[in-house]
Amino acid sequence: MIKAGIVGGTGYTGVELLRLLAQHPQVELAAITSRKEAGLAVAELFPSLRGRVRLAFTTPEEAPLERCDVVFFATPNGVAMQQARQLLAAGVRVIDLAADFRLQDVAEWQRWYGMEHACPELIAEAVYGLPEVNRERIRSARLIANPGCYPTAVQLGFLPLIEAGVVELDSLVADCKSGVSGAGRKAETHILYAEAADSLKAYAVPGHRHWPEIRQGLARAAGREVGLTFVPHLTPMIRGIHATLYARLSAEVDVQALFERRYAGEACVDVLPPGSHPDTRSVRASNLCRIAVHRPQGGRTVVVLSVIDNLVKGAAGQAVQNMNLMFGLEETLGLTQLPVSP
Amino acid sequence: MIKAGIVGGTGYTGVELLRLLAQHPQVELAAITSRKEAGLAVAELFPSLRGRVRLAFTTPEEAPLERCDVVFFATPNGVAMQQARQLLAAGVRVIDLAADFRLQDVAEWQRWYGMEHACPELIAEAVYGLPEVNRERIRSARLIANPGCYPTAVQLGFLPLIEAGVVELDSLVADCKSGVSGAGRKAETHILYAEAADSLKAYAVPGHRHWPEIRQGLARAAGREVGLTFVPHLTPMIRGIHATLYARLSAEVDVQALFERRYAGEACVDVLPPGSHPDTRSVRASNLCRIAVHRPQGGRTVVVLSVIDNLVKGAAGQAVQNMNLMFGLEETLGLTQLPVSP
Amino acid sequence: MIKAGIVGGTGYTGVELLRLLAQHPQVELAAITSRKEAGLAVAELFPSLRGRVRLAFTTPEEAPLERCDVVFFATPNGVAMQQARQLLAAGVRVIDLAADFRLQDVAEWQRWYGMEHACPELIAEAVYGLPEVNRERIRSARLIANPGCYPTAVQLGFLPLIEAGVVELDSLVADCKSGVSGAGRKAETHILYAEAADSLKAYAVPGHRHWPEIRQGLARAAGREVGLTFVPHLTPMIRGIHATLYARLSAEVDVQALFERRYAGEACVDVLPPGSHPDTRSVRASNLCRIAVHRPQGGRTVVVLSVIDNLVKGAAGQAVQNMNLMFGLEETLGLTQLPVSP
Amino acid sequence: MIKAGIVGGTGYTGVELLRLLAQHPQVELAAITSRKEAGLAVAELFPSLRGRVRLAFTTPEEAPLERCDVVFFATPNGVAMQQARQLLAAGVRVIDLAADFRLQDVAEWQRWYGMEHACPELIAEAVYGLPEVNRERIRSARLIANPGCYPTAVQLGFLPLIEAGVVELDSLVADCKSGVSGAGRKAETHILYAEAADSLKAYAVPGHRHWPEIRQGLARAAGREVGLTFVPHLTPMIRGIHATLYARLSAEVDVQALFERRYAGEACVDVLPPGSHPDTRSVRASNLCRIAVHRPQGGRTVVVLSVIDNLVKGAAGQAVQNMNLMFGLEETLGLTQLPVSP
Repeated sequence: MIKAGIVGGTGYTGVELLRLLAQHPQVELAAITSRKEAGLAVAELFPSLRGRVRLAFTTPEEAPLERCDVVFFATPNGVAMQQARQLLAAGVRVIDLAADFRLQDVAEWQRWYGMEHACPELIAEAVYGLPEVNRERIRSARLIANPGCYPTAVQLGFLPLIEAGVVELDSLVADCKSGVSGAGRKAETHILYAEAADSLKAYAVPGHRHWPEIRQGLARAAGREVGLTFVPHLTPMIRGIHATLYARLSAEVDVQALFERRYAGEACVDVLPPGSHPDTRSVRASNLCRIAVHRPQGGRTVVVLSVIDNLVKGAAGQAVQNMNLMFGLEETLGLTQLPVSP
Repeated sequence: MIKAGIVGGTGYTGVELLRLLAQHPQVELAAITSRKEAGLAVAELFPSLRGRVRLAFTTPEEAPLERCDVVFFATPNGVAMQQARQLLAAGVRVIDLAADFRLQDVAEWQRWYGMEHACPELIAEAVYGLPEVNRERIRSARLIANPGCYPTAVQLGFLPLIEAGVVELDSLVADCKSGVSGAGRKAETHILYAEAADSLKAYAVPGHRHWPEIRQGLARAAGREVGLTFVPHLTPMIRGIHATLYARLSAEVDVQALFERRYAGEACVDVLPPGSHPDTRSVRASNLCRIAVHRPQGGRTVVVLSVIDNLVKGAAGQAVQNMNLMFGLEETLGLTQLPVSP
Repeated sequence: MIKAGIVGGTGYTGVELLRLLAQHPQVELAAITSRKEAGLAVAELFPSLRGRVRLAFTTPEEAPLERCDVVFFATPNGVAMQQARQLLAAGVRVIDLAADFRLQDVAEWQRWYGMEHACPELIAEAVYGLPEVNRERIRSARLIANPGCYPTAVQLGFLPLIEAGVVELDSLVADCKSGVSGAGRKAETHILYAEAADSLKAYAVPGHRHWPEIRQGLARAAGREVGLTFVPHLTPMIRGIHATLYARLSAEVDVQALFERRYAGEACVDVLPPGSHPDTRSVRASNLCRIAVHRPQGGRTVVVLSVIDNLVKGAAGQAVQNMNLMFGLEETLGLTQLPVSP
Repeated sequence: MIKAGIVGGTGYTGVELLRLLAQHPQVELAAITSRKEAGLAVAELFPSLRGRVRLAFTTPEEAPLERCDVVFFATPNGVAMQQARQLLAAGVRVIDLAADFRLQDVAEWQRWYGMEHACPELIAEAVYGLPEVNRERIRSARLIANPGCYPTAVQLGFLPLIEAGVVELDSLVADCKSGVSGAGRKAETHILYAEAADSLKAYAVPGHRHWPEIRQGLARAAGREVGLTFVPHLTPMIRGIHATLYARLSAEVDVQALFERRYAGEACVDVLPPGSHPDTRSVRASNLCRIAVHRPQGGRTVVVLSVIDNLVKGAAGQAVQNMNLMFGLEETLGLTQLPVSP
């Protein structure tokens, strides 16, 4: 059994990790920390876990994190980088669900996240945890930067086109719609029910932190910089991301075959038949990314529709997928629950 | 492996049965029928099942139902009673998720359901599939009348009080709120998104078919007729039933202890600590009923809060629980997925 | 033109007051205060008011409240009682949308609201602003206690029965469902979209502040104390209250005729035809209360269904209705917008 | 008073027209037809109109349409073209809220709408009812083709850029999100609450009927054909369209100033300050289009955010705006209700 610890388990990625790990046949939950809720039973904060998760929150100091095999950080940005060095030194693998190790360019990270990085020397070692791209490196990694939710949906949608070199790289557009849980479990006015329900809005059009992360991933695939316009939208649903991607073809190609080939062996990516329109509920509560690809009116513009559950393939599920790889387990172990629909 | 067939798998209880049975370690899906969708792959109608359910819908005639070990009817009322006799004769166990065998009084059934009963002789044999009441009879049953969604939540909430003989039986009130999936997957105007969203209404106040079913169950426990006012409400959520129950105490009793004792050994009923208020999402997509009990201001009125997922403990999950009992399996086999929250 | 001021205009009752007063033909908005948002243009906080409300928030000190004809308090409980004395002394009428003057029993108020009352001498003078009960007293009032949202829906539903003396008074039940805006525009976790959407829960079953308010109103009508069980529920909709009321008849009576007679002249109460089930959206954004009355199975239990928009007839609209009465205007002036449906 | 008739008033654009016309100071509702609901009181089908609309539905044959001053068609496509000739001959002005007269190219219309046009000779006369473009022609029109909902939001968002000739015309992208009421009040499975809630999907990516309509409008402004990719999405909200538009600048220009100048005199278009993100609820139930314009990272891609209420500025409200112009009334008469928020 893998002994797993969670730092910062009171948010939505935390409770989703708990849901997945508590059902994982090879994991034993060893500790979960929350400075604010220390002493409280996890199942009291999250009644959905009653009878199944018997841990209580502890302070980080009291938690036996260094005796874990793996520690997940489901914390705000800037926390994992404070503790990663020590845990790695103790032989613990670290999976950061926040952004501390996602950008390889430290200066850019500091610009977007507005703080100094606490352990820049670990950034080069950290592996970006997108298994469909970095599977082999993940297997041997000590430190995983678990991808952001938007970056997961967008990269999985664009990569086949970019890797094949068949689209113009200067005018990519990613129009993304996210459920409100993507904003976290924070007491903020704009994500109140009465604000976010029955309404939709774009946000952060001038610049969003997932923009450099996506560009980094696409640039690596392209071998050069890419031009990307990324517009996220707050959508009245709990879970789900729908990325609608636009690119101009630079070569004639059978895009459907291209996508099917690229993801042929991937258990967590499902390329739909031609003409499909995936809805986010078809992946709700599952670790799947479903993708459809279109060429409206047979023109030069390719439209890719890519949906994930932001809390699963976009966060906690992908983290477990990475853990499975790191510990030599079946990649989808504990991740095969069917989507919940309706 | 249990060979299972589903008759009428295009509704919400059908797809939920598919979700549960496809993940059940001891079940092999042998057939699923739909006259209207015959020939269509199940996963085309329900993309959430892509890659996991490879069956196609067939007509009832072509389906190898008589070679199944168990057949579930996820059909409109009035269908199971047409086919039950023949299946039972062939040695197949039958679980009807509709109402054909729920009422022991044939005349009353015919009055509420507006049709003649096709096999009244089977009604006496049919076992009402509420395991928390009829566990032993279910184990040996050939024919199960799977309870309605409201009746499950309401009976589980009232039974401890009634069995203990501590409440007045003439003025019970069950104020119930159901998610819209409870109305089925039918193309009807009143359950359109734009009609049902951001609104709430009572319905069927003059009389609802679940009223006689609940009364029958409560009367059996009481040993006499009970007076019950039942008001269902259509609520803007997909899944979930919240039953708010009101009864007047006729004896002094520790109601919290009463409930805890009654459900001490029950895996699918969770009595919450004093002062709790269960929300429906704490049971979403799970086979649990969570219950809290209150005596506001220490008065004579007991308020019971009982929540279930109408499609799971209120339908497909309870059907699988019954199947497990009938086939000598662990009662919760295939039913242990944690609720999905948020 | 009536010069109107609003104290504390950053919540949902505040913005709803602004919506109504900005469209009222006889009102001039003179000032709106918010200590926290002082200096901010109202339309910047509430973009729905752009181009129509040109005021900015000011501190209470700077606001010309004493030169207003009427001041509305859309503040948390405990604010209006600090300022009412001085405003009344300056000849300003005061309408408190919070609870400071709702309970005539000071001791009970202090118990439920957990603070000392700052001007108990004004409580007796304050008129409870339910026009359907206190119309004449409102016309000449200086100080109005605007009713709570639940109390409005529940009292309008019970009053015809109680005034007529035809129901048992010891076992009234009010099962109420409220949209999330009823909890206010406060940054609290439990009313986040991802918490409140697609779920329903009861709350405050042991005791809610609206319970003594409702009992006070019903007792006044009954001429004696009443026994009331009141259970509010948080419902996944933005606006709307649905009160489902249960009472036992103590006399034979035509309840439909009773309700129609009681509200025959009332512009803001609409008694539906027999057999109706009002939905909350049929009053959305309007100052109406729609009521239907049932006797299921012709029994002794009366079920009353009473719906309002909690922000309009349950708060800001009723406040404007009171203002109209106080200033000798047509009672529904500025309140005749049709409900928004769907 | 203008005598107004409505043909086909049982859908969402019909009931919204009723809401607006019933409150219009210069309109008298003379007739409303529905073959299916003939004889039924309008307020019985739409309880939100109780007490305010006293008409009953009649058959088209019985309705005094030829004695109206204006007749609105809130019908499926293909109905208005059957009756327009006769009504115009009788001197009645006609406003078609469906698509019969929207496309000037008859062959293209027939291709997209799959039927033969019944009165092609009227197409050239019909005026496309977008007042911000065709105001003068609308004033003297006999026959108005009221624009589609998506086309309204998209054209208003793109027009300033295209009219100024500052964007590349071959790669325009319109990513649009619509509330479910946009699909109409039809009993269809895919728009059931349990299907459409808590989920989001693109649809009609290969081709949507609003695509040629938008292209026609943009081409007229550009003086040449334009290349447009249009992807609509079904979004879990009742009302609202959010169009997110992408264009590549071909010239250096102050886009904010450009938009402000273009819509300076427009009462129904509100250009937000730089850096804004309009939400659809800021226009809910109002006839406004709010627009914000961005240049992320100061690059060459312009992002325009354009929001409307699909039932008001996207349908019934714009129809009333057109009627006002046709009859020489103040353009916004009866259309000044403030948005309902929250």
